[in-house]
Amino acid sequence: MSSEDLFSIPLDVPYAACDTFIANYQRITRGTGRLMLFAGDQKVEHLNDDFYGENIHPDDSDPIHLFRVAAEGKVGVFATQFGLIARYGMDFADVPYLVKLNSKTHLVKTGQRDPVSPLLVSVQDVVDLRDRTGLAITSVGYTIYIGSEFEAEMLREAQQVILDAHRNGLLVVLWIYPRGAAVKDEKDPHLIAGAAGVAAALGADYVKVNAPKKEGATPAELLKEAVLAAGRTKVVCAGGSSTDERKFLSELYDQIHTGGAGGNATGRNIHQKGHDAAVRFCNAIFAITVEGADVETAWKIYTGE
Amino acid sequence: MSSEDLFSIPLDVPYAACDTFIANYQRITRGTGRLMLFAGDQKVEHLNDDFYGENIHPDDSDPIHLFRVAAEGKVGVFATQFGLIARYGMDFADVPYLVKLNSKTHLVKTGQRDPVSPLLVSVQDVVDLRDRTGLAITSVGYTIYIGSEFEAEMLREAQQVILDAHRNGLLVVLWIYPRGAAVKDEKDPHLIAGAAGVAAALGADYVKVNAPKKEGATPAELLKEAVLAAGRTKVVCAGGSSTDERKFLSELYDQIHTGGAGGNATGRNIHQKGHDAAVRFCNAIFAITVEGADVETAWKIYTGE
Amino acid sequence: MSSEDLFSIPLDVPYAACDTFIANYQRITRGTGRLMLFAGDQKVEHLNDDFYGENIHPDDSDPIHLFRVAAEGKVGVFATQFGLIARYGMDFADVPYLVKLNSKTHLVKTGQRDPVSPLLVSVQDVVDLRDRTGLAITSVGYTIYIGSEFEAEMLREAQQVILDAHRNGLLVVLWIYPRGAAVKDEKDPHLIAGAAGVAAALGADYVKVNAPKKEGATPAELLKEAVLAAGRTKVVCAGGSSTDERKFLSELYDQIHTGGAGGNATGRNIHQKGHDAAVRFCNAIFAITVEGADVETAWKIYTGE
Amino acid sequence: MSSEDLFSIPLDVPYAACDTFIANYQRITRGTGRLMLFAGDQKVEHLNDDFYGENIHPDDSDPIHLFRVAAEGKVGVFATQFGLIARYGMDFADVPYLVKLNSKTHLVKTGQRDPVSPLLVSVQDVVDLRDRTGLAITSVGYTIYIGSEFEAEMLREAQQVILDAHRNGLLVVLWIYPRGAAVKDEKDPHLIAGAAGVAAALGADYVKVNAPKKEGATPAELLKEAVLAAGRTKVVCAGGSSTDERKFLSELYDQIHTGGAGGNATGRNIHQKGHDAAVRFCNAIFAITVEGADVETAWKIYTGE
Amino acid sequence: MSSEDLFSIPLDVPYAACDTFIANYQRITRGTGRLMLFAGDQKVEHLNDDFYGENIHPDDSDPIHLFRVAAEGKVGVFATQFGLIARYGMDFADVPYLVKLNSKTHLVKTGQRDPVSPLLVSVQDVVDLRDRTGLAITSVGYTIYIGSEFEAEMLREAQQVILDAHRNGLLVVLWIYPRGAAVKDEKDPHLIAGAAGVAAALGADYVKVNAPKKEGATPAELLKEAVLAAGRTKVVCAGGSSTDERKFLSELYDQIHTGGAGGNATGRNIHQKGHDAAVRFCNAIFAITVEGADVETAWKIYTGE
Repeated sequence: MSSEDLFSIPLDVPYAACDTFIANYQRITRGTGRLMLFAGDQKVEHLNDDFYGENIHPDDSDPIHLFRVAAEGKVGVFATQFGLIARYGMDFADVPYLVKLNSKTHLVKTGQRDPVSPLLVSVQDVVDLRDRTGLAITSVGYTIYIGSEFEAEMLREAQQVILDAHRNGLLVVLWIYPRGAAVKDEKDPHLIAGAAGVAAALGADYVKVNAPKKEGATPAELLKEAVLAAGRTKVVCAGGSSTDERKFLSELYDQIHTGGAGGNATGRNIHQKGHDAAVRFCNAIFAITVEGADVETAWKIYTGE
Repeated sequence: MSSEDLFSIPLDVPYAACDTFIANYQRITRGTGRLMLFAGDQKVEHLNDDFYGENIHPDDSDPIHLFRVAAEGKVGVFATQFGLIARYGMDFADVPYLVKLNSKTHLVKTGQRDPVSPLLVSVQDVVDLRDRTGLAITSVGYTIYIGSEFEAEMLREAQQVILDAHRNGLLVVLWIYPRGAAVKDEKDPHLIAGAAGVAAALGADYVKVNAPKKEGATPAELLKEAVLAAGRTKVVCAGGSSTDERKFLSELYDQIHTGGAGGNATGRNIHQKGHDAAVRFCNAIFAITVEGADVETAWKIYTGE
Repeated sequence: MSSEDLFSIPLDVPYAACDTFIANYQRITRGTGRLMLFAGDQKVEHLNDDFYGENIHPDDSDPIHLFRVAAEGKVGVFATQFGLIARYGMDFADVPYLVKLNSKTHLVKTGQRDPVSPLLVSVQDVVDLRDRTGLAITSVGYTIYIGSEFEAEMLREAQQVILDAHRNGLLVVLWIYPRGAAVKDEKDPHLIAGAAGVAAALGADYVKVNAPKKEGATPAELLKEAVLAAGRTKVVCAGGSSTDERKFLSELYDQIHTGGAGGNATGRNIHQKGHDAAVRFCNAIFAITVEGADVETAWKIYTGE
Repeated sequence: MSSEDLFSIPLDVPYAACDTFIANYQRITRGTGRLMLFAGDQKVEHLNDDFYGENIHPDDSDPIHLFRVAAEGKVGVFATQFGLIARYGMDFADVPYLVKLNSKTHLVKTGQRDPVSPLLVSVQDVVDLRDRTGLAITSVGYTIYIGSEFEAEMLREAQQVILDAHRNGLLVVLWIYPRGAAVKDEKDPHLIAGAAGVAAALGADYVKVNAPKKEGATPAELLKEAVLAAGRTKVVCAGGSSTDERKFLSELYDQIHTGGAGGNATGRNIHQKGHDAAVRFCNAIFAITVEGADVETAWKIYTGE
Repeated sequence: MSSEDLFSIPLDVPYAACDTFIANYQRITRGTGRLMLFAGDQKVEHLNDDFYGENIHPDDSDPIHLFRVAAEGKVGVFATQFGLIARYGMDFADVPYLVKLNSKTHLVKTGQRDPVSPLLVSVQDVVDLRDRTGLAITSVGYTIYIGSEFEAEMLREAQQVILDAHRNGLLVVLWIYPRGAAVKDEKDPHLIAGAAGVAAALGADYVKVNAPKKEGATPAELLKEAVLAAGRTKVVCAGGSSTDERKFLSELYDQIHTGGAGGNATGRNIHQKGHDAAVRFCNAIFAITVEGADVETAWKIYTGE
């Protein structure tokens, strides 16, 4: 964990936007600084692979499922695309949203061409929607693939997104993944710490990285380097493997309490469940991330005992 | 079919454009929500291949044929390029138009270079034409080739087209086709469902996909996954093979009543016929799509019995 | 020939520009709808190859020759680059000009890289020159290479040129040539008809295509498919081979009276002659194209008998 | 030489800028129409190769040398980059400047990638500097590599530079060199004449070409084709080889009096000398180019006899 | 050293910005014209390699370390990214900042693709931050890789950065490194002098180059060519190898007093030390660079004797 913990508003938030920025920060972290991000932006990234098929509950085949879970479960923010919010937001007005600004499909693989993900909507588009509808749009997200031959384009867009978002009181979560022909090990802890440092240099509020992996140390231990490198930018990552909910919650606890993570970002582990289970798992994750619960307490929330 | 059926105006339509948006929606679907789209945009896509040659009626060699069919037949919208509307619209003022915004020729094949289709006119150009002439320009269309190396460019343009169109009360139909070196099976139902999900994430009103194909299931059955994935975005596809009109109408009926399709998009099957047959086939398709007719009734409309 | 002949102003010409548009149309076609275009834009396209060397009259080595011929001969429009008009127009104020907006050299061959031709001046630049000087700038021209890997860029620019030109009362001639690694036979009549159809879809007023060639039919017969495909956009092409003036005039006559061409575009066949012969050949071409002369009459005009 | 000699202001110079344009023209040609251009833009093009090393006078190692020569010698214009003018102009306020707008280094060779040279400052930047400081900024320069795969980009920028410069009363010199994988012989007289014709088509005031070379004719004879092709655009080239000053002056005389050149552009032959010799050589070149001197007279100016 | 030493404000600084420009110049050089630049922009360039690992003090793993050293040590400017300044500047308001405008990671190596570094924030973004917060933002920095295939893009951006910065009273440091497939020896003194000349042609205030290396001469001797080539633009480079502080200081002294350097730029040699040692080493470097100290004096400052 960083050597300092005070919350401070970044200087690119102008005075006029400070109250909004603080309110958004408080809302999505319940004043704790820790973020539980429910990720529902995979309809572009993974097409229908995450929503339909073996081991996926039929509830997940219709996009309204994501909104229903976000509305009935406890989440810091629900991250999804602008178009879906425009189409469902009127019926789910109380959900705190993060608009994922860029997206690509997974069809073109890294072996064919290095990844690039275009900005689909501008921050101004998002602000217009927020101001006109009163929806709880609190933040925006953007993915950078460092090590891609198109890295330059994404670094530039990400930086401008941060400036534009802060100017309007919105928080920013960057997803940063090392990927491309030049990247040998995407889970290398030192490389992931580098990704976290890039987020700090760009002035992001949160950075989502993959959980680091290396022989001889737990992911939570390995995360420490990244948390230090990120400085005042907070690090979030997914809790763990999708196959065992108890193990997921336990690893999540360690990421926060051992690794110093500032929250978590979870998608498929939640939404591939049926409605009720998904809501309970949301709440369990929220309990650990935001409410200070231990693993046992969270497990009970999930199992409904 | 999606678990919900209510019509709702997407939130990116501002208040000032709501009446126009609703009127356009009602007009092109006759209040049913189902769209019969007569596609006449192939003069760029397929050059003269669709309009002149064996098994094509000589009427089709002159572009005015398209307009005459659209004017005398029943259509939801007639989709064609801006330039043709500018040149013929004064004589066909009652046709409801969809302006197809991007187009490419088929000369460069996917084996040579992945497909990309440029935006030829902006939504603002379309709005200017509509407002100045009073033509019934109700909607715009844009094609995305997901899986192309140029996918990013098209996703970005499509998203901005949707925002601009909705801002002006116009509906949007996306044509989404998986295509490029990375795509093995363009008709794979799961991939087509992915395309439908992309349209939902972008907030399109309708998405035109190819009819899915897979051993062991009818296209109509296979379409269900896509209709679910699309959520509140409605799915349309072509009725079927071009060689047998009766079979075409029957497959269309199944797409709507079994697959849950929200309409259909038909081009060559209509316009390669002579004027009178084309008009009657239009009306038959319209009857099934919009007027609730069964196959037998539609067949009688076509055969004029 | 198209099934209809009425002149109508395209709808992208706003009311305020209609009078200018009609006046330009009448001026360059003498009210006949048929265009005689004298092409003098080869100083970029072909560098000095067309102006200096064997079988080229020394008069042609100085660019003022083009202007003198255009001023003393009868032409519908004289097509050349902005820079030359800016430099010579003050001495040739009565010539009706077409500004050729894009140009490339022929140094990079298709075998090395597919062709692309950049827009050098905007329509607004042209309008500014027209309005400030009172020169008879009546129209603009743009070349598209369909089948090039850079086709998208040129289709997009061409469409915007048409909108900008019509907005200002200027007519548009598109030069459309199938060219690039993907194109096997640039003179294929069906492909040329496709090019004509693209011009129609973009809303051009005239399209210059190469004369089609195929065993077993005359070019004039072969042109019919393109004329039909172009609809209300008129088709022009060069009269024929450069080596025999009589044959050139005869083929030109057939293109118009058999093929349905809406004019012709001729460059080297005119300007590679000495001044007097060039003027007489201009007048002979004009006589057939615009004045309804037969071949014999035109021949007498050229030979001065 | 062109068949006409009258000076006329190009039509893209608006009325409000005519006086400035004429004054600049008179100043840099002393009313003769012939331009002596002292080229000092090689610090980017050739890095330090032209300024430091064997056979280069130590005076040339500091950029102030260029300004001192330009200030004490007779020059039509001193061509250099914006940044150097901004840094030294306050001490050399009487020098007539040409701002070279684009530049590249010579590190990437044509064998690796075809040449492209980016616009570094806009004409507006130059106009702002001129208007704010009162410096004698009379003209701008831009290099085009025709035959490069990036030719399109440079043709487009060059054309816009000409429009912007003329709009502000500045003259334009284009450097046009055939270069790239597609170019076999950069000194071919016919190709160089083509380059001169391109400058005419773009409407440049002067075009700098390389001296043509071909067996069996003197460069001065060979230049005639280019001078004709350029029409009202004037042609300048370097005087000759750098090793023999007398021969240089003699070739320069022939270029003007035999070849019809409208001036000369000389860099290294001047600035690689020590201060006094450089100034005298400047004056000798100026005498032939502008003052009508013969070779003997110029030689005496250089040698100080 | 250049033959002249007077300070003069470049002409692209408008009158209204002169006082700010002079104040910034005085502040960062303490009126000496010599710059001590503490480089802390490696979190993007080198990811976490410079901040965590063997031989790196743990203090360096958290970005706040850089700010603490800059605040407690003596520096001319502290160079780092916008995002970090936005996040830490409120606690380190007295540090004189240089905002490094472009950055890339080192993941894609030159062997794979030539380097390019995108502009992340505009000068206007920097000016807005300065004017709104009152932070001591004195200057901006930009890196150019000459010899890269993307050199054109960087030259263009660098030039515009200089104009925009000077317009707002900010100084500019260019980092110029020859790099790419075309570059054989990045440390070649003649090539480095070329890089310095490019900075002069662009009008930079300072240029950071690598210390030149060549058999048979000291780096300080070798630097002279670059200092001459740069003219009124001042040259800074790193002091020397990182392993021996005494040698570092000695080489730095020679660079200034023998080579004519106008300062130095040092990063890892400072920040990889623990807090106290880093501060003392800062002060030692500052003493030589700005305060006229000899090596012995500086060494005592570092060792605290």
